[in-house]
Amino acid sequence: MVNANEIEILLVEDNPYDMELTLRALKGSLINNIHVARDGEEALEYLLPEGADKENEPKNLPRVILLDLKLPKVDGLEVLRRIRESEKTKLIPVVVLTSSLEEKDVVESYRLGVNSYIVKPVEFDQFIKSVSELGLYWLLLNKPPF
Amino acid sequence: MVNANEIEILLVEDNPYDMELTLRALKGSLINNIHVARDGEEALEYLLPEGADKENEPKNLPRVILLDLKLPKVDGLEVLRRIRESEKTKLIPVVVLTSSLEEKDVVESYRLGVNSYIVKPVEFDQFIKSVSELGLYWLLLNKPPF
Repeated sequence: MVNANEIEILLVEDNPYDMELTLRALKGSLINNIHVARDGEEALEYLLPEGADKENEPKNLPRVILLDLKLPKVDGLEVLRRIRESEKTKLIPVVVLTSSLEEKDVVESYRLGVNSYIVKPVEFDQFIKSVSELGLYWLLLNKPPF
Repeated sequence: MVNANEIEILLVEDNPYDMELTLRALKGSLINNIHVARDGEEALEYLLPEGADKENEPKNLPRVILLDLKLPKVDGLEVLRRIRESEKTKLIPVVVLTSSLEEKDVVESYRLGVNSYIVKPVEFDQFIKSVSELGLYWLLLNKPPF
């Protein structure tokens, strides 16, 4: 496992095919320090472990979270809500990366304070290109809050 | 003047040189529907004109706001605060584009709900490249709330 200090991206994705494509795109852009959570509960345990607050200071948090919406156990919107509620995680940039084009998902994500909302392209090459661009945008161009 | 229906970007920038470079970079990426506000007051009058609420429905609002921080009359952080306070504008993606690397500006921007924080590159070519990339990211990749 990669040391938590080095994690740049937390990818929250349950679909194995989408996860594989996303990792491939990010690694193709030389982004390698990625932690994967396979459902919403895993994501929250990673970000906000109970009884271990001091072990997970901001400097150990990811620079950006890529968050699917349709997730087992705890769905993406609820994960986003919990991230924004906690003082520890509320400022972390969160990008929703989803197949959902439903307006209620888009609007609710923005209402909950998502930084950006990306619809997964259906076509393989476009998926790779979009994820690569968004990875570089959030890791190279954007200045994170810590 | 471009019809308000077509405005894609509201650029809030008082420095003539930075404004010129930003417009050049955006137009180089074929982004032409840009409205420029030269201080914070102009930006707020454009977004939230008093007594003209019905003429400025969400569909006429920009898809993204590029906001400098050090602005005459009303500074960028106050503009951001007012954007986030109004039901009409609160969901519009706002990208701070500034020379300030000061941590308090970065953290306060995120606390006020900025979507992204970009430090203006000092070097000409890098400035053009970064602004071009951020324009394409927010207009082509990101799905806006309306």
